[in-house]
Amino acid sequence: MILTVTLNTALDLTYGVPELVPHASHRVGEMSERPGGKGLNVARVLSALGHRTVVTGFAGGSTGAVLRELLAGLPATDTPGPEAAGPEAAGREAPGPGAPTPIAPAPITDALVAVAGNTRRTIAVVDRATGDTTQLNEPGPLVTADEWTALLGRYEELLAGADAVALCGSLPPGIHVGAYAELVRAARAAGVPVLLDTSGEPLRRGIAARPDLIKPNADELAQLTGSREPMRATRDARRRGAHGVIASLGPDGMLAVTPDGIWQATPPARVQGNPTGAGDSAVAGLLSGLVEGLSWPDRLRRAVALSTATVLSPTAGDFDRAAYEELLPRVAVEEHTPAAR
Amino acid sequence: MILTVTLNTALDLTYGVPELVPHASHRVGEMSERPGGKGLNVARVLSALGHRTVVTGFAGGSTGAVLRELLAGLPATDTPGPEAAGPEAAGREAPGPGAPTPIAPAPITDALVAVAGNTRRTIAVVDRATGDTTQLNEPGPLVTADEWTALLGRYEELLAGADAVALCGSLPPGIHVGAYAELVRAARAAGVPVLLDTSGEPLRRGIAARPDLIKPNADELAQLTGSREPMRATRDARRRGAHGVIASLGPDGMLAVTPDGIWQATPPARVQGNPTGAGDSAVAGLLSGLVEGLSWPDRLRRAVALSTATVLSPTAGDFDRAAYEELLPRVAVEEHTPAAR
Repeated sequence: MILTVTLNTALDLTYGVPELVPHASHRVGEMSERPGGKGLNVARVLSALGHRTVVTGFAGGSTGAVLRELLAGLPATDTPGPEAAGPEAAGREAPGPGAPTPIAPAPITDALVAVAGNTRRTIAVVDRATGDTTQLNEPGPLVTADEWTALLGRYEELLAGADAVALCGSLPPGIHVGAYAELVRAARAAGVPVLLDTSGEPLRRGIAARPDLIKPNADELAQLTGSREPMRATRDARRRGAHGVIASLGPDGMLAVTPDGIWQATPPARVQGNPTGAGDSAVAGLLSGLVEGLSWPDRLRRAVALSTATVLSPTAGDFDRAAYEELLPRVAVEEHTPAAR
Repeated sequence: MILTVTLNTALDLTYGVPELVPHASHRVGEMSERPGGKGLNVARVLSALGHRTVVTGFAGGSTGAVLRELLAGLPATDTPGPEAAGPEAAGREAPGPGAPTPIAPAPITDALVAVAGNTRRTIAVVDRATGDTTQLNEPGPLVTADEWTALLGRYEELLAGADAVALCGSLPPGIHVGAYAELVRAARAAGVPVLLDTSGEPLRRGIAARPDLIKPNADELAQLTGSREPMRATRDARRRGAHGVIASLGPDGMLAVTPDGIWQATPPARVQGNPTGAGDSAVAGLLSGLVEGLSWPDRLRRAVALSTATVLSPTAGDFDRAAYEELLPRVAVEEHTPAAR
């Protein structure tokens, strides 16, 4: 199974309004409510790809209870995921490189740690005409030292059964800024490949603990390295400790600087849509590919096709499966020559 | 006791942001959560004035549970309200005309009817620099015919012990547009004075059932009568069935057209602040004054002083007690001569 950690889970609300006008009153039309926070989004995509996933992190209060109730309803269909055929197939419930992934989603297991505080809400206000989104994010509950200790214990237990782990998103109040470094070290000590997807100081500290992968976007990379030149910034991020750096270049695809080589993956065309969750889909693509033993080009193809299909989906954070399968063979992956390294 | 009915209760969230910028992402700074919907706001002010209040209406789902939990914590202090001295004092726990009201708040009793749907949230996004507010209101739960029947039963039981009743706010989905007319007729049949505070078609239908009082603002009155001229519109509203019409003229105070005479009440000065909840405070002022047997001029003085003190309060919907007591004797009330009627 793949483990995802979301320290600052969220109950994600989406409100449709004709147009958001500051200082006016708005009657919300359509609204939806779903479990959120980056690691939960990653889990949803992994599940859709047929990978059994366990989610941990914190949840509490009335919003945490709603989040867990909604999470229990995932995947939305009750068709079970394909069962592994034998020990050698463990954690490889999706078929091999390039093949379309199975439709049947795999289960998501709730291993969240209860906290006394209230899980935050995030509100995405979507202008119905343009699709433009205004985001309001609550800060999250104050997590106590005892709650953090409980999370560490739960995390170490779960690592024992994990094929890979993703550490995702912001830190809630009360959690020390070196928290991700601690989680990276525990994963490495357990021999579990670890991907870190966060930003700012938690990313800077986390990288120093030498995660297998980080997946920054251009802004996160610039904040970390001071450079907006992708190759320079990505290499700098590797020197800071990350074994592999997959820089997301938005509509231009991804640049991967890894111990095995350097690749650039580019979608067949620029697409219009809502980029919310595209990065989480990319994380799911990278981790599922890693666990399935795909080559770097195939992992990148999957990550770019998934994130492009997420931008194309009418629902923020979901991916359009037909678009994904159509895009997958059309993602261009170019290897940089050793001289360019 | 005074009964307030809030068919579309709400969990009111207030988010502080430096500035609301459409299509940007915002980290919410301060946030607060409180039970809302007009009738609940009226009850909070009645309680602060020392009047025992019972609230009914609908509440359901996880947001309804949070609302009821927060309501159980009201009034915020655990000092009990002053006890009535004897039968003749029933429902008159506040002292007579003009005197400062007691500080000790009276209890608010939760008699909400449970529904299967989720109580709506409202979100007030407050720009920290200017205090300007952007409002997002969810539509509310779909109320079933059985739930409406349960409400009617609860309402009739509560009317038996009520000295006055306020019917407040919008209708949730599923409730027929003549619902307030039905509630007005039941109150009149029970001999309980009834104030209706709503807008649009529910107000138009409700008025035809001859409520004792309505308290429209200029926009509601214009929508009802087609006129923005206060005296003309207020008289027209009376002709449509309301025994008394108290038109709220915003910073200009209130115009009361009643079977006993016509009065205009004006605050001593225009004030700056947040008008959220000023109308609900006015309803509490009018109803408490009615139950205490105050004269029209004293009821209007109280309503205008309370609503002005609500605009002045730093917390939306609360009133500034010191400002209220200072304003009360300074509200000017002018009677229109019979010829002007």
